[in-house]
Amino acid sequence: MTTGTLRHDRMMYGGIKLYTGSSCPELAESIASHLEIPLCERTITTFPNDNIFIKLKTSVRGQDCYVIQTLSNPVHTNLMEMLILIQTLRLDSAGRITAVFPYMCYSRSDKKDQPRVPITARLVADMIQVAGADRYMTMDLHADQIQGFFSIPGDVLYASHVLVDKLLELKKQLNNPVLLSPDLGFAKKARNYAEQLNIPLAFIEKRRILHPDNPEALTLIGDVKGKDVILLDEEISTGKTIINAVNVAVKSGAKDVVVVFIHPILGDDGAQQLAALPVKQFITTDTIPIPDEKKKFFGKRLSVISVSKLLADVIERVNAGRSVGEMFNE
Amino acid sequence: MTTGTLRHDRMMYGGIKLYTGSSCPELAESIASHLEIPLCERTITTFPNDNIFIKLKTSVRGQDCYVIQTLSNPVHTNLMEMLILIQTLRLDSAGRITAVFPYMCYSRSDKKDQPRVPITARLVADMIQVAGADRYMTMDLHADQIQGFFSIPGDVLYASHVLVDKLLELKKQLNNPVLLSPDLGFAKKARNYAEQLNIPLAFIEKRRILHPDNPEALTLIGDVKGKDVILLDEEISTGKTIINAVNVAVKSGAKDVVVVFIHPILGDDGAQQLAALPVKQFITTDTIPIPDEKKKFFGKRLSVISVSKLLADVIERVNAGRSVGEMFNE
Amino acid sequence: MTTGTLRHDRMMYGGIKLYTGSSCPELAESIASHLEIPLCERTITTFPNDNIFIKLKTSVRGQDCYVIQTLSNPVHTNLMEMLILIQTLRLDSAGRITAVFPYMCYSRSDKKDQPRVPITARLVADMIQVAGADRYMTMDLHADQIQGFFSIPGDVLYASHVLVDKLLELKKQLNNPVLLSPDLGFAKKARNYAEQLNIPLAFIEKRRILHPDNPEALTLIGDVKGKDVILLDEEISTGKTIINAVNVAVKSGAKDVVVVFIHPILGDDGAQQLAALPVKQFITTDTIPIPDEKKKFFGKRLSVISVSKLLADVIERVNAGRSVGEMFNE
Amino acid sequence: MTTGTLRHDRMMYGGIKLYTGSSCPELAESIASHLEIPLCERTITTFPNDNIFIKLKTSVRGQDCYVIQTLSNPVHTNLMEMLILIQTLRLDSAGRITAVFPYMCYSRSDKKDQPRVPITARLVADMIQVAGADRYMTMDLHADQIQGFFSIPGDVLYASHVLVDKLLELKKQLNNPVLLSPDLGFAKKARNYAEQLNIPLAFIEKRRILHPDNPEALTLIGDVKGKDVILLDEEISTGKTIINAVNVAVKSGAKDVVVVFIHPILGDDGAQQLAALPVKQFITTDTIPIPDEKKKFFGKRLSVISVSKLLADVIERVNAGRSVGEMFNE
Amino acid sequence: MTTGTLRHDRMMYGGIKLYTGSSCPELAESIASHLEIPLCERTITTFPNDNIFIKLKTSVRGQDCYVIQTLSNPVHTNLMEMLILIQTLRLDSAGRITAVFPYMCYSRSDKKDQPRVPITARLVADMIQVAGADRYMTMDLHADQIQGFFSIPGDVLYASHVLVDKLLELKKQLNNPVLLSPDLGFAKKARNYAEQLNIPLAFIEKRRILHPDNPEALTLIGDVKGKDVILLDEEISTGKTIINAVNVAVKSGAKDVVVVFIHPILGDDGAQQLAALPVKQFITTDTIPIPDEKKKFFGKRLSVISVSKLLADVIERVNAGRSVGEMFNE
Amino acid sequence: MTTGTLRHDRMMYGGIKLYTGSSCPELAESIASHLEIPLCERTITTFPNDNIFIKLKTSVRGQDCYVIQTLSNPVHTNLMEMLILIQTLRLDSAGRITAVFPYMCYSRSDKKDQPRVPITARLVADMIQVAGADRYMTMDLHADQIQGFFSIPGDVLYASHVLVDKLLELKKQLNNPVLLSPDLGFAKKARNYAEQLNIPLAFIEKRRILHPDNPEALTLIGDVKGKDVILLDEEISTGKTIINAVNVAVKSGAKDVVVVFIHPILGDDGAQQLAALPVKQFITTDTIPIPDEKKKFFGKRLSVISVSKLLADVIERVNAGRSVGEMFNE
Repeated sequence: MTTGTLRHDRMMYGGIKLYTGSSCPELAESIASHLEIPLCERTITTFPNDNIFIKLKTSVRGQDCYVIQTLSNPVHTNLMEMLILIQTLRLDSAGRITAVFPYMCYSRSDKKDQPRVPITARLVADMIQVAGADRYMTMDLHADQIQGFFSIPGDVLYASHVLVDKLLELKKQLNNPVLLSPDLGFAKKARNYAEQLNIPLAFIEKRRILHPDNPEALTLIGDVKGKDVILLDEEISTGKTIINAVNVAVKSGAKDVVVVFIHPILGDDGAQQLAALPVKQFITTDTIPIPDEKKKFFGKRLSVISVSKLLADVIERVNAGRSVGEMFNE
Repeated sequence: MTTGTLRHDRMMYGGIKLYTGSSCPELAESIASHLEIPLCERTITTFPNDNIFIKLKTSVRGQDCYVIQTLSNPVHTNLMEMLILIQTLRLDSAGRITAVFPYMCYSRSDKKDQPRVPITARLVADMIQVAGADRYMTMDLHADQIQGFFSIPGDVLYASHVLVDKLLELKKQLNNPVLLSPDLGFAKKARNYAEQLNIPLAFIEKRRILHPDNPEALTLIGDVKGKDVILLDEEISTGKTIINAVNVAVKSGAKDVVVVFIHPILGDDGAQQLAALPVKQFITTDTIPIPDEKKKFFGKRLSVISVSKLLADVIERVNAGRSVGEMFNE
Repeated sequence: MTTGTLRHDRMMYGGIKLYTGSSCPELAESIASHLEIPLCERTITTFPNDNIFIKLKTSVRGQDCYVIQTLSNPVHTNLMEMLILIQTLRLDSAGRITAVFPYMCYSRSDKKDQPRVPITARLVADMIQVAGADRYMTMDLHADQIQGFFSIPGDVLYASHVLVDKLLELKKQLNNPVLLSPDLGFAKKARNYAEQLNIPLAFIEKRRILHPDNPEALTLIGDVKGKDVILLDEEISTGKTIINAVNVAVKSGAKDVVVVFIHPILGDDGAQQLAALPVKQFITTDTIPIPDEKKKFFGKRLSVISVSKLLADVIERVNAGRSVGEMFNE
Repeated sequence: MTTGTLRHDRMMYGGIKLYTGSSCPELAESIASHLEIPLCERTITTFPNDNIFIKLKTSVRGQDCYVIQTLSNPVHTNLMEMLILIQTLRLDSAGRITAVFPYMCYSRSDKKDQPRVPITARLVADMIQVAGADRYMTMDLHADQIQGFFSIPGDVLYASHVLVDKLLELKKQLNNPVLLSPDLGFAKKARNYAEQLNIPLAFIEKRRILHPDNPEALTLIGDVKGKDVILLDEEISTGKTIINAVNVAVKSGAKDVVVVFIHPILGDDGAQQLAALPVKQFITTDTIPIPDEKKKFFGKRLSVISVSKLLADVIERVNAGRSVGEMFNE
Repeated sequence: MTTGTLRHDRMMYGGIKLYTGSSCPELAESIASHLEIPLCERTITTFPNDNIFIKLKTSVRGQDCYVIQTLSNPVHTNLMEMLILIQTLRLDSAGRITAVFPYMCYSRSDKKDQPRVPITARLVADMIQVAGADRYMTMDLHADQIQGFFSIPGDVLYASHVLVDKLLELKKQLNNPVLLSPDLGFAKKARNYAEQLNIPLAFIEKRRILHPDNPEALTLIGDVKGKDVILLDEEISTGKTIINAVNVAVKSGAKDVVVVFIHPILGDDGAQQLAALPVKQFITTDTIPIPDEKKKFFGKRLSVISVSKLLADVIERVNAGRSVGEMFNE
Repeated sequence: MTTGTLRHDRMMYGGIKLYTGSSCPELAESIASHLEIPLCERTITTFPNDNIFIKLKTSVRGQDCYVIQTLSNPVHTNLMEMLILIQTLRLDSAGRITAVFPYMCYSRSDKKDQPRVPITARLVADMIQVAGADRYMTMDLHADQIQGFFSIPGDVLYASHVLVDKLLELKKQLNNPVLLSPDLGFAKKARNYAEQLNIPLAFIEKRRILHPDNPEALTLIGDVKGKDVILLDEEISTGKTIINAVNVAVKSGAKDVVVVFIHPILGDDGAQQLAALPVKQFITTDTIPIPDEKKKFFGKRLSVISVSKLLADVIERVNAGRSVGEMFNE
């Protein structure tokens, strides 16, 4: 992209203004650095009554603003911080506001699969809109249908854009690798990865009825015997699902196991538990920051692939009114 | 339910008024008959300029109205008929309006999985709401997340409530039956059926890359060799997916094949093509009416299980302000 | 308009992007050709379940988009196609979207003139807005009040801008011409034409009560005896109104009759019936395409005046932020 | 209607609560008296800064409230008084609020028939809705299409329901009566009256071009020679249109002239001017109160037919959830 | 109130259903106990990814639901819990939902008194509405104008209804008491208390400019010399304002000091700091629960007056459609 | 500001277009003159039925429009005129519309401080938004919280920006001046003035209970004995509050009194009454025009400080997308 074209296009929405809350300062800095602009200054104060107060240092009238805030733990404070930032920008007459949350909280609460439960992902979408966002940007939603919860347009990006290259390289070191999906709800996305890696697919099925003495029995559908396994999941919190999956895979004759996951929540003692598994390598992204005290459990086995360049490129194109799809030859 | 209680509760929303468009007259009649009330009279006229005109015969002020209209072919005319009916009821000051569409059109267009495409299911949800529906009722959406496309509350019912009994009976006549899902996007619902039937599960994986000379190669993941197969799909239109699935299943050593599907769209010459398959039995529902000239291709191999009693029971509970979940012990 | 000015003004809303559905390809091509830009590429697929799928070939982020789609037969499919196009553009972050429907369906359903009927034109306006249109453009609504059904701004154009010149020329060949309006609801628009042509006015009154044995008796109010008649109507579908009007005019002593109408719906066998009338000439526009097999009934008696230059000029001005009214010295 | 049924039905929306502003106290009293309930007490204060303050004397939680306020001169104060009353009821948690304005101001500003003008009737509809009305009730809108400006349901009533009986009686005393419409925009409504009276119809056409030295030339289309004329108009303000119409009618050979009009605005010195005309009788309604000092100009020639019984009956049915259409055999 | 009347009225909105989140279980229990109905059962689960999940035990279709949740620390989690509960009730087709938050968080962020700051109280109001509340109920907002941030009706109650009796009793034991307001923004509410207690009023003024070496200088306006002081504040968090006020009062010659405050936030070590003051008595309410470990600092000097009876009475009247104002002779 | 920068920035929203209604022609002219652009031409007609009709002379497509209209007496006509202007601009596809009302009517009706009353300021905010304003600009609202009644962004300016300099000058001529606030609701704003003038503060307390024989007894809290008094109020209508305040001040030993007020409503005979007071000087602004016949009562004692330069500067910055806060070093 030539600078000349960029400048011309940018006039469409005013200049890019990057704001960030407290949840992912390093990712935000990294995006800003790719865009070669500084993060905008603002003060965020938490009063003793637990209320947050925000003040922008400079005016954003007519500017094209991006609020970068991942919605990880503490979820509700991070969410509120993002909403207050959005409202503040709106009341200061921002030209356009895009909420950039690489990880969307509550995206697993996306349907009523039993009576009398919420659809909290819709509530979150409504809250983001009522605060005043004009657009949103996120990564690997639990279900792509959550796009339809928003009335505003958005860009949903996929970590596969940064992970597949890494995995193709990894594949060279593996023996007869199989892609194993630990959750049937994730089956279609697993197929896409398997397709891009050109390797076979297998599933783990969780079932309540077959073994009545065992509330949740696991079956491995497909063939992993004597093969290396790439276990792929969307997010890992306590790691319980992955721990079970590794055990089933090993019991089914798998050899080396590599665990790939997009959103590293690592709640409770998840990091410690995962690290204890007979797993050769862990690959994830920085949609959620992993504190050093959790990283250390994994040692060199953990690779964190950054999504910051991807997000920066998309922000630049969104601001310039250029196609995002063509980044991925779509 | 005692009549006394019913009458008392019904006062909450006025009496039930059932309306129907042109798309599923028999289902609507059957629901009315279960509720022991007549369908309300209205005239529907199509003018030579293709515009539809509706007039209700009697006033619905303050009444609890249900518009029963499946959204099958001709989809757009059926959809518009439903929307006009809803608006007419609203403008006549109906007390509450529930759109009852056993099959929701466009429910497969529920996400942007590539750039520059619509999310038409959200558009349909918006249209139903802007016409004036206060609630909706439907069956087996392509994805349960579509519930989150509506801001109004709704009841999404499952044909499994009427199909599982039938399948449990069928199971007795089968040999080592396996539930086969022809689409990975449908994996989780297939698992639920398998769980209730207490039989194993297998999948067909469709992939583009493995066999470059063959744009869509199919793999069967799981084991069907020497077993009978229950092939389960959500909707069947041209039957192409099912035809391929039957072929793969047979090639993989399956013995008898039974095809179960919820929404019998049977577009183009789908009925004829399906009927030509080496399939022992076809089981479906009446969420979409099957014309006699299509039914005849199947002869006695086709069983249509009616959902009218289920819908009637739910309408009665919704009107009375009683739990629907407790019908299913939820 | 100088090119320099144009370029400068166009920056206000991004470049013009023209899209069209399936209903009026020739009109859309003609508009594009007047604007000297190509129609944007998109694929429109109809699946066997009658659902439409659309994909834009290139990104429209920040662009000024126009969806050209007349809402003629098949009305509901054409309407849905337009709505899906609008939503697709919106979800791709178009800068501004104008729905351009030269003929608005359901514009005759614009009021409740009896209880328990819809106001479908309002429903259509709501649907266009909920799909995401920012503006609309249309021609000769059944009632100008329909503008008030929209919350978004719009441009309602009049075929008189292209028809009056034609009629002034025609007037020279006529003897004592009288403008005859076949419908009292159309009286005021007929007056405007008569005023511009500087000729007298007459009406046909339709009444139910006077002749009880004749459900709809017609009276000609005004004087056509020995005069040529220009019979003017808004839209002609089956032609029943026009056929009766010609008969009454002839019975009242009119000599030559010319029929002028804006929207050529020509439903059922309307074209054939009209062509059989003792009418010297038929003048209409291309707000709705007339298939060749209908055109042939009229032979050389039919003149179709194109509105494409008018629409192209207005689109150019709307994009440039220049007055449309000044085109008509208003 | 039996009292028992009434009581039962009324529970649907709570009891009727009638409120009125300052614009039509007598009409409101008369409606209340027909319903055998008192008007609810409220204080309305106008502060020296011209701001209005309202306080309800008793709570309206859950009640079915009707705000009776005609929107005549002073229009903006009367409109604001109605809006404040509606908001006050809403904030006090009224069960349902119906705005009852027998005459709707700005109903002639119902379309953009030239560029750069407002559609103020839509603005008024939006204001009524944003204040919190759930329904509206009005009489003889300038155009029935204004119904489509509201998203809430409403009842538009016609003075013909009370005028036609009076006119049928009058007809017996007239010689060959003709119904004359002074405005082509009113043609269709005039036809309906003519139809119900079973008398012929004539029009006055106003035109700018024919007589260039005369900016507005009038032509009478139809035949009034030697006949009595019933001149019918929607509203009379300064009476200019009617004065011209009477003159043209007389010049065209009409004998006795009776003037019938629905909304007696009588602005400026309209009453005096009208009374000076060679008109045998004036018939109007009380949708707008006529002050005594204006009434006196007409002496016994003025008959005011009250719409209060009609409005009371409709309010009673609306509250009870019973059909309004069936009052008029529709 | 007779039971008979109550039952009849209650039918208007269905029965009362009380729900509560985690923030004020004792207050909720106490309200339920006053209403002689149990709190409704629901499960609230917090997942390791910090997401909350709620499931209602029984259906609330058509019921009149109240969600009791004070919005104290942890503010964002308590707020989100309330919003999820509201959405869950709405999606289960509750008849009416009232959010009951005795203390509203962020009510001090109610205006932009400097550029580029939020109005978070409006954001909170929008969130409550978008979640689906039909009404709200709260106590002593920081500014009564916050009522205007909601479009839904609400009941704002005042602790003065339970505090004034207590203070009148206290007054008997005091010498020449003066009501002292520590914040000018609170002046008008202080006047109301002083009026009801019939005692004089004094203020503390906080100023930045007068004493440049002292960023915030305090002045006591009015006369407290030799008198007892009732120091009244809305909410106490760290107590800094109160500590300063007590010091100024004492320096100005006040004798005994009593501190009255409505919302006991008591953040950080506020309780400990307050308790160390030369204050005779502390009087507050239970709009926010005070944990025992904070209560113990005060010993017998702390009186907590419960608002539960007040809230229960109002809920009963709201459900029955009876006036709340008349409870207070308004 | 350099012209070059200005031109570049102005492209963001199109050029400034200033419109004004009838309420403050001189202020509008003065703003236009500061901006060195003419007011845009439009015709405003009042019909004999009291309806207003507006027509813009030129198109505003894509332009940045400002409607300058103070909302003083006649309040409702002025308000409606502003709303119609806004809607007209919107329907003509204006790029952005800012409602500029230096004095907001109904801003004292900003809360329910008793049951069953309106919050009319919220209603006015809703009306401005529903008419189509994108932003608003006003001065010294009765309560800053009214900002939260709008969902659109706005700029609330303070007359202190033009008054404080004047008052600092005045201070030099006064002896020991004290700032006296006649209303406790205005206490905090009075403190801000006192702070900027670096003078002490006193209050007048109005109370109902202390002196039962005197419904409203006034007490002066603070010390004015032997000092000059600057009496500051927000708006003066009949002047009753100020007359009482002057009397109390004098009775309390004040020497010279200067009255400062922002919005000169001067309703009824307020001007005459005020002028009769023993007041040395009156200082106000032109947010509301004072007719000459009222000005003359004051003679030379009245100074009107214009806010037009302030408003013009802010409009210029808003159009250019530059900070308004930095004008005031905020």
